[in-house]
Amino acid sequence: MGSVVALAGQVGGAKLADGLYRLRREALTVIVNTADDYEHLGLAFSPDIDTMLYTLAGIAASGAGWEPQGESHALHHMVKTLGGPDRPVLGDRSLAAPLLRADGLANDRTPTQITLDFCRALGIAARVLPMSDDPVRTHVLTDEGAVTFHDYFAQLGCEPAVRGFQYAGAAAARIPDEVMEALYAPHLEAVVICPANPYHVIRPMLEIEGMKALLRRRGVPVVAVTPIIGGRALKGSAGKMMRELGRELSARSIAGEYLRLIDGFVLDSEDEPLLESVRSLGIEAIAVPTVMRSVDDRIVLAQEVLDFATAIRIRREAEVE
Amino acid sequence: MGSVVALAGQVGGAKLADGLYRLRREALTVIVNTADDYEHLGLAFSPDIDTMLYTLAGIAASGAGWEPQGESHALHHMVKTLGGPDRPVLGDRSLAAPLLRADGLANDRTPTQITLDFCRALGIAARVLPMSDDPVRTHVLTDEGAVTFHDYFAQLGCEPAVRGFQYAGAAAARIPDEVMEALYAPHLEAVVICPANPYHVIRPMLEIEGMKALLRRRGVPVVAVTPIIGGRALKGSAGKMMRELGRELSARSIAGEYLRLIDGFVLDSEDEPLLESVRSLGIEAIAVPTVMRSVDDRIVLAQEVLDFATAIRIRREAEVE
Repeated sequence: MGSVVALAGQVGGAKLADGLYRLRREALTVIVNTADDYEHLGLAFSPDIDTMLYTLAGIAASGAGWEPQGESHALHHMVKTLGGPDRPVLGDRSLAAPLLRADGLANDRTPTQITLDFCRALGIAARVLPMSDDPVRTHVLTDEGAVTFHDYFAQLGCEPAVRGFQYAGAAAARIPDEVMEALYAPHLEAVVICPANPYHVIRPMLEIEGMKALLRRRGVPVVAVTPIIGGRALKGSAGKMMRELGRELSARSIAGEYLRLIDGFVLDSEDEPLLESVRSLGIEAIAVPTVMRSVDDRIVLAQEVLDFATAIRIRREAEVE
Repeated sequence: MGSVVALAGQVGGAKLADGLYRLRREALTVIVNTADDYEHLGLAFSPDIDTMLYTLAGIAASGAGWEPQGESHALHHMVKTLGGPDRPVLGDRSLAAPLLRADGLANDRTPTQITLDFCRALGIAARVLPMSDDPVRTHVLTDEGAVTFHDYFAQLGCEPAVRGFQYAGAAAARIPDEVMEALYAPHLEAVVICPANPYHVIRPMLEIEGMKALLRRRGVPVVAVTPIIGGRALKGSAGKMMRELGRELSARSIAGEYLRLIDGFVLDSEDEPLLESVRSLGIEAIAVPTVMRSVDDRIVLAQEVLDFATAIRIRREAEVE
């Protein structure tokens, strides 16, 4: 049994990563999007990292996986009482990581070091790694101008129509040594692109200088899981963005986004009719249940994904012989 | 009825300031010690200011007047879960002001502007003013070296014997315009030095360049209220400090600390026998109940203090004639 690298962000990505974690424990490395990070009140918010940490540590709220269980808002109410901003809403528990992160950064620690410290403290055996220690920011291009994804989400409520994306800093960002190490691990068996918004979660990671080339060159199966089921996004704004970008709102479009990068694509059972259409892109495909309602669902899907990667590898090796 | 200026810090000082506030409302200005301020996790803690704000806003906890009512510690527990420091203990509500203050300072607002914003938001009609917008830090000189008061209190538990104090930055600190304005108000009737540790609360304010001279020159009665009753400090480390500094542990010693500055000194009824001894220092003195258990106690003491100041002024005017 080899090691696994997952590329992830958001709640859906964290759920599949959690399934992989329960199967592979310390043999899992999760590379997480940090292009939606933002500063607020001097604190360093890294929503996809924190969602991943809470999920893998088993302390994520079941209804709102991006925050810890039992969240309260005493500090936020006091901030409002003192005349401070009433948006975004700050959870007491959710503020701890951004507070410690800002303090760590001010003391010259890297996002990677800070995140690995959090993993250790939370007892997470896997490695959760920021995609880069350099700042990358996704800018949403709209008819009303370019805004950071955080502002698009928190201030504009994802309202303005999306015309495109820019990944500021991606070309100059360095892949951290820890990420390189995970991708060059001798027994790496699969790279899994978890279900998440392709535009502001997965693509920022792929836009980092050298990342796509590295994944192609590495030669282990790269398998992506669809965030689109039956022509709709399970969560978030992916569906709206695809429409506004003129993409067909289907899982096949997502596979198209990862063309020439992925070897396999996992559709939801509901989209079984799309199997041939995805395969026509030169991508292997399977259709399995992808909605993760329980922890068991996460494990079952993770196992399907790893089995699929193994099948791809075996088939390839057979072809070479 | 004129205006009143109080010099204050700590819970006892805030209680008397609250009594004065209930009598004088917007005609009260409270100048508050900021020499015990400290930074922690990048936040700007100003304990005496926040104690004063909570007290005047009527939201201070009754048992722990330095924090808001109904304090909780969700964020602190999460900080510990993430491997962060477990001391000092951070209250969810108590963190709001240090968070907003740090953000304000980072955005080039002054401590005075930030504090006045808090007053407005909290509906406090009086003006709560930091003693200076420049950093002043009380250093406690001990046999083991010099430490900030915050470290002496929070890290050393006030253990090491005190040999003296230094007020770093005081000589270079500027008295804010708002403080000058309050002290030069045409109908100023009294300056009240509230009961508080003379060494790390009151003296830092008096050590600011020009402050003592200004109070003397101003010519309105300056009245201090004892923090020592019956040879012991009601709260905090004043008693221990006095012993270690070789001072007699009595209210008279406190009066001595303010020699050539105050016109009147308020002893506790319990210390009535000391009246003559204080008067022998050339300071007028009265003995009244000074322990403030209820809000009524605060108002009664505040009224005694203001009446005492009035009596001093009338006597003085009579002497001039």
